[in-house]
Amino acid sequence: MIVHAPFPIRGRRLLLLAEGSFCAADAKTAVCLAMYRPDDVVAVLDSTRAGRCVDEVLGFGGDAPIVASIDDALRERPEIAVVGTAPIGGGLVEPDRSLVARCLEAGLDVVSGMHAFVGDDPGLAALAAAKGARIWDVRRVAETRVVSDGRGCRTGASVVLTVGSDCGVGKMTTTVELERAAARAGMRAAWAATGQTGMILRERGVAVDRVVADFVGGAAEALVNLEGHGAEIVFVEGQGSITHPGYAGVTLGLMYGCMPDALVLVHEPGRPHYKRLGHDLPGLRDLIALYESLMRPWKPARVVALALNTAALSQPDARAAIEAAERGTGLPAADAVRDGCTRILPAIRDALRR
Amino acid sequence: MIVHAPFPIRGRRLLLLAEGSFCAADAKTAVCLAMYRPDDVVAVLDSTRAGRCVDEVLGFGGDAPIVASIDDALRERPEIAVVGTAPIGGGLVEPDRSLVARCLEAGLDVVSGMHAFVGDDPGLAALAAAKGARIWDVRRVAETRVVSDGRGCRTGASVVLTVGSDCGVGKMTTTVELERAAARAGMRAAWAATGQTGMILRERGVAVDRVVADFVGGAAEALVNLEGHGAEIVFVEGQGSITHPGYAGVTLGLMYGCMPDALVLVHEPGRPHYKRLGHDLPGLRDLIALYESLMRPWKPARVVALALNTAALSQPDARAAIEAAERGTGLPAADAVRDGCTRILPAIRDALRR
Repeated sequence: MIVHAPFPIRGRRLLLLAEGSFCAADAKTAVCLAMYRPDDVVAVLDSTRAGRCVDEVLGFGGDAPIVASIDDALRERPEIAVVGTAPIGGGLVEPDRSLVARCLEAGLDVVSGMHAFVGDDPGLAALAAAKGARIWDVRRVAETRVVSDGRGCRTGASVVLTVGSDCGVGKMTTTVELERAAARAGMRAAWAATGQTGMILRERGVAVDRVVADFVGGAAEALVNLEGHGAEIVFVEGQGSITHPGYAGVTLGLMYGCMPDALVLVHEPGRPHYKRLGHDLPGLRDLIALYESLMRPWKPARVVALALNTAALSQPDARAAIEAAERGTGLPAADAVRDGCTRILPAIRDALRR
Repeated sequence: MIVHAPFPIRGRRLLLLAEGSFCAADAKTAVCLAMYRPDDVVAVLDSTRAGRCVDEVLGFGGDAPIVASIDDALRERPEIAVVGTAPIGGGLVEPDRSLVARCLEAGLDVVSGMHAFVGDDPGLAALAAAKGARIWDVRRVAETRVVSDGRGCRTGASVVLTVGSDCGVGKMTTTVELERAAARAGMRAAWAATGQTGMILRERGVAVDRVVADFVGGAAEALVNLEGHGAEIVFVEGQGSITHPGYAGVTLGLMYGCMPDALVLVHEPGRPHYKRLGHDLPGLRDLIALYESLMRPWKPARVVALALNTAALSQPDARAAIEAAERGTGLPAADAVRDGCTRILPAIRDALRR
């Protein structure tokens, strides 16, 4: 069930494919790699932003050039092309398919988190074979028929799950930041990657949204037991949101599979609607009550802190949003990237000691 | 996405394979077919109960013999063998695999709701081809990449979802009984089959637990729009339970895909634990609150009635259990099979009028 990366990503020269979409809202995978692997990214393909460098567009991520064509990108001698966009439904559509074909022709390995597998496309598979290029379809999961039984992690590690008010709010980023902060604080910490972007960073994990629905919990249970081995705390990357009409089933299957001891709620202040849906998000207190009510039959796990993604806000507005969220919920809140985890991590440790 | 039965079941001579397990707890598919297709069932294979007839074992289901071997079964001239058991994880294990092989050798068509597909077993597929026998793997779903967006049924039909306190409590049976009662009451009623047993009865539907997790809602949405065509009310067969550690993700994905206007909670009084898990079930009021809280961001859908499965209770005990449930929840309750739907259906109609 657990997919280990079939080839290492770290330390190799990455080309990020993000044509027309190199921003946080539309190219989550590309932006996260720019954030966490800035030294590995050698070029980003987005003709609409070409001529600038990554840092000029995102405000972080280093000085790799944004280029307008594969020919321009190849001058930077990339070794791996990463499909950096994540369209709803995960189809490999144009222009992405043609760009992938060009990369394979040039002998680059291709990493893709799409639901439509690059390796299942006969034309692309043939190109890869002819050029000796390798394909990692990150979302491809091994067949499994394990149904979770509610036992969660049995390695002795505590489990902390990031949950969200919506998709694309920063659950993966929060998870990574928490794991780093815990390790810096001297804890034996690990994290479990449950989605395509996290898996590329972690070089292992399982794309739970791609698992047959009956077995999402079993896959999550296996993953948390793998990551929990030798750890005292495992941070699990959450998926979707418990009230998201498209993804809530994945959210809940993951939650019951990993059976967390504590939850961290991730939210983007100032986002009034579900991403791409135009329907009001529930309030934070209602969301907290929902997540805790669903956990209650199994564990007295509470939402112990809020991680707020304030990347789109000015510093004063971010501060105001964080204070408002703390007043509204009575929980400690912080932006895990901007502020670090000095408020969130102690709240987690306190809750786990109880 | 929607699977129509590749060959009709109704009116054909059925052999039910339920070796060692012909009881409601262990052979849901076989028992439901005995209940709803008594005239079609010509034999049941269960060597541990051989020599009696269906009605003697179940208390309903007609006089088809229970036999000890495929040879005995073949004397009843069956046309279709139905795998009648539903083990956790849905593997096709012995003795079921050998029994299926014997049936195919004898030229019978085979219908199976297992997660492990009969048609994917090279030996069984070859046997079927050699004998001209057909295989319907009920859980095989067409590939889909539709993510539900919360719009639910757009045909004008009202949607009523049966939800459960656990799996195997009688959600499918309740759904069928409600549809029949509504039709008798002159409503243009339909029902949507979402699991293997329901699909065999309905001869169409989609096994939502087999769909890739991201697309469960999309599959449910498509199904309810199909069944809603020309209907004023669609009863949707629920799956699992919202707090079941193995299946809750399917439950929630289905709920948000079909976006019901009203819910009917199905429960088996006297069942203290989750089936096969030995963990306490939540109370009915907590469950009702959970289901309604999850619906609230999308629709003001309420649990409007309880359908209690009292098959294992005496008539006085059943009556007492129903009255206790009504007192405890303030909702009308009845056993949809034993008592009919004369209390439940009016409660649904009242709720939909509001």
